[in-house]
This record gives sequence, C-alpha cells and structure tokens, in this order.
Amino acid sequence: MGPTTLLGPGDDAAVVAAPDGRVAVSTDVLVDGRHFRRDWCSAADVGHRAAAANLADIAAMGATPTALLVALCMPAELETSWAEGLADGLAAEAATVGASVVGGDMSASPTLTIAVTALGDLGGRAPVVRSGARPGDVLALAGRIGYAAAGLTVLTRGFRTPRLLVEAYRRPQVPYAAGPQAAVLGATAMIDVSDGLLADLGHVAKASGVAIDVRRDVFEVPRQMADAARALGVDPYTWILAGGEDHALAATFPPEVALPPEWRPIGLVTAGAGVTVDGGAYDGPRGWDHFR
Amino acid sequence: MGPTTLLGPGDDAAVVAAPDGRVAVSTDVLVDGRHFRRDWCSAADVGHRAAAANLADIAAMGATPTALLVALCMPAELETSWAEGLADGLAAEAATVGASVVGGDMSASPTLTIAVTALGDLGGRAPVVRSGARPGDVLALAGRIGYAAAGLTVLTRGFRTPRLLVEAYRRPQVPYAAGPQAAVLGATAMIDVSDGLLADLGHVAKASGVAIDVRRDVFEVPRQMADAARALGVDPYTWILAGGEDHALAATFPPEVALPPEWRPIGLVTAGAGVTVDGGAYDGPRGWDHFR
Repeated sequence: MGPTTLLGPGDDAAVVAAPDGRVAVSTDVLVDGRHFRRDWCSAADVGHRAAAANLADIAAMGATPTALLVALCMPAELETSWAEGLADGLAAEAATVGASVVGGDMSASPTLTIAVTALGDLGGRAPVVRSGARPGDVLALAGRIGYAAAGLTVLTRGFRTPRLLVEAYRRPQVPYAAGPQAAVLGATAMIDVSDGLLADLGHVAKASGVAIDVRRDVFEVPRQMADAARALGVDPYTWILAGGEDHALAATFPPEVALPPEWRPIGLVTAGAGVTVDGGAYDGPRGWDHFR
Repeated sequence: MGPTTLLGPGDDAAVVAAPDGRVAVSTDVLVDGRHFRRDWCSAADVGHRAAAANLADIAAMGATPTALLVALCMPAELETSWAEGLADGLAAEAATVGASVVGGDMSASPTLTIAVTALGDLGGRAPVVRSGARPGDVLALAGRIGYAAAGLTVLTRGFRTPRLLVEAYRRPQVPYAAGPQAAVLGATAMIDVSDGLLADLGHVAKASGVAIDVRRDVFEVPRQMADAARALGVDPYTWILAGGEDHALAATFPPEVALPPEWRPIGLVTAGAGVTVDGGAYDGPRGWDHFR
C-alpha cells in the first residue's frame, strides 16, 4: 500500500489521503469483447490497460493519482488465476505512480466486466479543464501517439508483431508526470487522448469555444509503424491522428511558456471552431470507437 | 450539484471537496438477474438501491457521503429511458444526503451491470472500522431490519404486497445520519448490514477478536411482516437475523455511552469468538447471498 492509503481493503470503505482538500475522481468501464479481448491480452495486460485509462484521466486534470478501486464481474467458468492476474496488473500500473488498489467488489456475471475508479490529489493547483484554451495558445502533446492503435490493427489482422506496437496496445506507456507538470507550467486546457487525437481535441475546441489546428509534419512515424503501415496497407497518420488508447496527454499553453522536452508543440489554438490539420479539413476517420 | 461538487461531469475527472484531508471511498457492483430484477424494480428503484448500498458503506465508516460515480453497462436493446430512470434514482438517493452524481462512464454490454463508487468526508473524526469492538461494549442497531428481505421473499413468491415490505426492498430507508452520529458518540466498531445481521456481525467479531451475542426479543416483528410470514410459512426472524439489504447500521459502543433513540441496544460484546443469539448457536440461515 502506498503512503496515500490510510485504510486499505477489508472494511466498509477505504480511506485515502486527500492533502489538497479536494479529490479528483474518474471512473471507466471495460467490457470483454468490446474494450479488450482475452486472446490478445493477458489478464495482467488488461489490468495495466484498465488502470492506465483511469490514471491518465487523473493526470489530465493536473492531479497525482492516489488510489484505484475495482468492481470485477466475472463468469463462473473463468479461472480465479485470471482475476489474480488482473489484480497484479492493476496494482503494478498503479504502483508506477505511487498509487494503490484500496478497494473493490466482485460478482459473478455472464459478461466479464471491469469498472475502475481512480482518485487523485491536485497538490494545491487548479484542475486543468477542457474549457480553458484561448486563441494564441500553443497545442502540445506528451507521450506516444498512434502506437496502440497500430498494435490493435496488427492484432485485428491476426499478427502478433511488431512487438513494439502490440505491446503498446497491451500496456500503454502513459506520461503520467506530464499532467501535473503541465498544470505547474500554466496549461490552459488538457485532455487524455483516449478516443483519438482529433476527436479528443474536438472536445477541447468545443468546450473552450476555439479552433485548433494540428501540424501533421511534427509527427514522426517510427520505423516499425511505417513498416506495419506498408505491410497492412494503412496510412500511418490514421493511427496517429485518429487512433486512441495510448493515453497521450494533449494540452494548450500560453505562447510565452517555455515547454520542457516532455511537451512537443503540435499545433495552435485560434479563434473559431473545430479541428483542422495543416489548416484544412481532415478527411480520414476522426476518432476511434474501439472495435466491434 | 451539491456544495461538495467542485467540478461536475464532462471533463476527464470530477473534483470533489474533501475538507477533512482524507476521503472515504467504496465501490459496489449490481448485476441484472443477480442483484436486481427489472420486473421487480423500476429503473429508478434500481438507482435508489445501487446508491443506497454505496452511501451506506460510507455512513458505516462514520463519514458523510459527498459524491457518487457510476459505470453503466447496458444491452443495446434496453431503452434509453431505462438509463434515465436509473440516473434519476441515483441522483435522488444521493440528494437525500446532500451528495451528487459527479461522473460516470457508459458502455454497451450483453449484461446490464451498474458499478457505483461513493466518496465521503470524515469531518475530522477517525474512521469507525470493523476491528475496534471490545468485550463489555454494547451492540446497537440503527434503521429497519428484515423488511427488505421480507419484501424480496414476497416478490420471489410472485406477490406484490404488502407494499411496506416490497417498497422496503425496492428503496431501502438507510439511517445515513446515524453513521457520523455513532462516530461522534464514540462507537468502537461499525458495519453496514447488507448480507444479513448475523453474517455481518460475524465480520465484526472476527476483525475485532471478540464474541457477539444478539438478543432476539429486542426485535419487534411489525404487523405486515408477521402477516406475510404467516401467509408464506416463513419464520420472520429469518428475515430479521439473516436477511440483508435494508442497510441498517450495526455498531458497538462503550457501556457508558448514553445511546440516542436512533440506536437501539440489541446485544453485547464479550470475550471469545463468533456470534450467538440469546447465548446459543443460531440454527437458521446466517446470511443472505442474494437470489440465484
């Protein structure tokens, strides 16, 4: 148990430190066959992904994750070792940010379902919401983008390599520390990129009442992604601009902020509405609606 | 939104006030056909029950509920009005304690599943855990007991009345305020009675390393319960001692504490182990494992 766990599992409720006097809290649910497939991911992988999705939401507010809770619904025929693997993955991912799994509930169910709730501490900072972007702000990105979507396409087509991409899908590498860092730097808006970059920037543009333009040439296509794209006949920018689940963080900053290397400038905020790429409409798919 | 909601739904995470600097947090999941049946309960009823189960866990720590989050998995064929009814029930139950639904997630799923997380504030008090009961303490109960179990038996047998019992099952009347009140009075242990009085007292006895004896004659059998018991051929004390889901609160208090009317003495804590009724073993069912 991490230092923020004041009372762990086993009582009617857990008790978690909230030194800031406010708590950031978010919940996400994963359904078997919809948000993950057991033949593509180990139980521990699913635990990492479920934790990452929630911890990234906390980071995207500029907060530091403190705790996870898990509600697990499991078919009777699934081995208990699967639940143990899931718990291991959840705990390991939480531990990367100093958080712990402090509580949970379990039930039998015909459908394997994992609902995770994450708590976080704002450390005295104002939460960075989606609605604060202003014309003139710089749009910047922390973390990898397109890798998980590429890995998912690879798996969907029946392949297991390139390993870099498949592992990126199974265990996203989330830039958790960049969230509080952005808040300290004075980010005006921030979002966890989970549905696809353009789709999630659309949420920021709408909430802030601004237009956002993304520069396509700032995104390097890594070699393995370029190879996979060629082999599978996919435009790699579809993964980068419209693929989700890397849990990169996108934030807007006033132009005078000196951005550290974690935050790469990828575009600009202007007056208007909507999201454009290189000043024009993007005609590929805009978001990632999981697989069906 | 209540005064504890600093940032409501619509961003990556909500922000909830935690003036105490600690947050009590608990999660519970309800699965269609296992924890509820849609032909027995309206969507709003299910919302009330799901919220009550979680808010009672917070009260049982001596905390005041501040917020709920909901992860809803719903079959595509279920009308959206069902989800709206559920949301109404959740919000209405939360409002009875000044809490709000601050966030959530939704997914399609073959199995209707509702995972709720509740947050609460301890108001400067130590959490009342299950492990603090000491020999000599008085065992006391707040809230109704046996009503929901009786209502469930009535519904299981195909009846819809007595209304008092059926409504108690559909919308439990939880003594939320009695939780923080017990903490202020100096309760040494407390638990939310959700699985059945004797089963839940067994958790307290085990965690505290004590024995607990319950006096059967302190429980009045209300007229409607006596009538239903006679008509259905059930011993009403099975509902009272082993039935769950009223979310009464059971707590232990040092003998010198003057108990207010909300807290009825129902037994004693002694040295030893296990739970007895009138000093002897109880030979009926001890707990309530939902319906199958």
